[in-house]
Amino acid sequence: MKYLLTVSYDGTHFCGWQKQGLLRTVQLVMEDAAREIFKAETKVTASGRTDAGVHALGQVCELSADTTIPAEKLRECFNAKLPEDVRVLRSAAVEESFDITRAAKQKTYRYTAYYAETELPLFERYAVRLEFKPLLERMREAAKLLVGEHDFAAFRAAGYTSKTSVRTLYEVKVEERTEDGAAIYTITVRGNGFLYNMVRILAGELFAVGCGKDTGILKALETGERKYLAKTMPSKGLTMVKVEF
Amino acid sequence: MKYLLTVSYDGTHFCGWQKQGLLRTVQLVMEDAAREIFKAETKVTASGRTDAGVHALGQVCELSADTTIPAEKLRECFNAKLPEDVRVLRSAAVEESFDITRAAKQKTYRYTAYYAETELPLFERYAVRLEFKPLLERMREAAKLLVGEHDFAAFRAAGYTSKTSVRTLYEVKVEERTEDGAAIYTITVRGNGFLYNMVRILAGELFAVGCGKDTGILKALETGERKYLAKTMPSKGLTMVKVEF
Repeated sequence: MKYLLTVSYDGTHFCGWQKQGLLRTVQLVMEDAAREIFKAETKVTASGRTDAGVHALGQVCELSADTTIPAEKLRECFNAKLPEDVRVLRSAAVEESFDITRAAKQKTYRYTAYYAETELPLFERYAVRLEFKPLLERMREAAKLLVGEHDFAAFRAAGYTSKTSVRTLYEVKVEERTEDGAAIYTITVRGNGFLYNMVRILAGELFAVGCGKDTGILKALETGERKYLAKTMPSKGLTMVKVEF
Repeated sequence: MKYLLTVSYDGTHFCGWQKQGLLRTVQLVMEDAAREIFKAETKVTASGRTDAGVHALGQVCELSADTTIPAEKLRECFNAKLPEDVRVLRSAAVEESFDITRAAKQKTYRYTAYYAETELPLFERYAVRLEFKPLLERMREAAKLLVGEHDFAAFRAAGYTSKTSVRTLYEVKVEERTEDGAAIYTITVRGNGFLYNMVRILAGELFAVGCGKDTGILKALETGERKYLAKTMPSKGLTMVKVEF
């Protein structure tokens, strides 16, 4: 039988999703738990890899197992074996023909930053402090340029390739709220797929534009050159929010 | 000269505020930083101690030092020496006659809990998961009983004494919001002072009442007996928000 698990994790102490030898990765601890539950080597495949330090509210992964455990009970079985910084929120059976690497229709990521004069220890784990207070209107104007189908080749970490760098973004939403004396900025991005580091590069450009940089987005989309865009944001501010099939 | 520092910390890896030999406490790291800055042993006194695991957004502490560093620059000096989980947000000079242990007019604490079927790793650091979804109205009704001047002897950890256990609570506010699929509950308490564990005991009783317990608050206030109240909540959900002079 094939099963889908919805998983949340605090990425702080993980070297990302994908197995890399003995490094502590989410895939490694998921497969360790699966081995104990099913008494067999079990591959756990995610809808998309997340980098070291990136968090997830609703990562989705699949596995195949020969078991009599009811699908909805797998959640508890995994949670009894997993370390505290990963939890399975839902588990369900899925058709054998389902292929998680192809089935995702859209994914949502969120980038969180805050502005305060001094680092706020209670914010630092899941958000990045900005040195300047960005102008929301400038960020929103720039964000509009990203929506739609584009070749995002410029929005990709150097050295990474994939068949195509054309992706469609359905929404790039920039929001501000005030909490405990800090201004918190979130960039929520929904699209049919993302390139390596794409959200962090896009967030870096939008925050830089908010702080006064002339937008390099049109040039970057046109030429595919990374140099028109600002610095990649750190991983800790990024959260994979949702995967939809 | 006497100085006041407003300090924020993530209490997760601290054994509370107060020095206890070589244990990692906030006072210890503050005094270590002060020693480096002023080249002299310097006592740092907080407006109120916080327990192991309790966080602070705006703890206030005082110190006396013989220095030519401008008061407002002390913030940066401390932050250059402190570990990342403590930050000085503001520094200012204060009159010699100021006594931080007596000068606080009111303090504000906040307790945060959430309800979700499974633990959410991204919430677990600063909030406690509730097994049941509490009824806000029941919590608010019970909270009203706490407001005003009362003898809170029952709301104190066993074995702790102080001259008087009479305190005045100006406000006990219960709020609910939804965030990332979880219902988040905050209890914000403002008063002229708090006994040892008082906010955590009070929060435990309010959440228990929200989940169906008959309130023991009146009996507890009347008799001073701890047994009428529910379990003390864990420290990680508690944050010292503000001290006012």
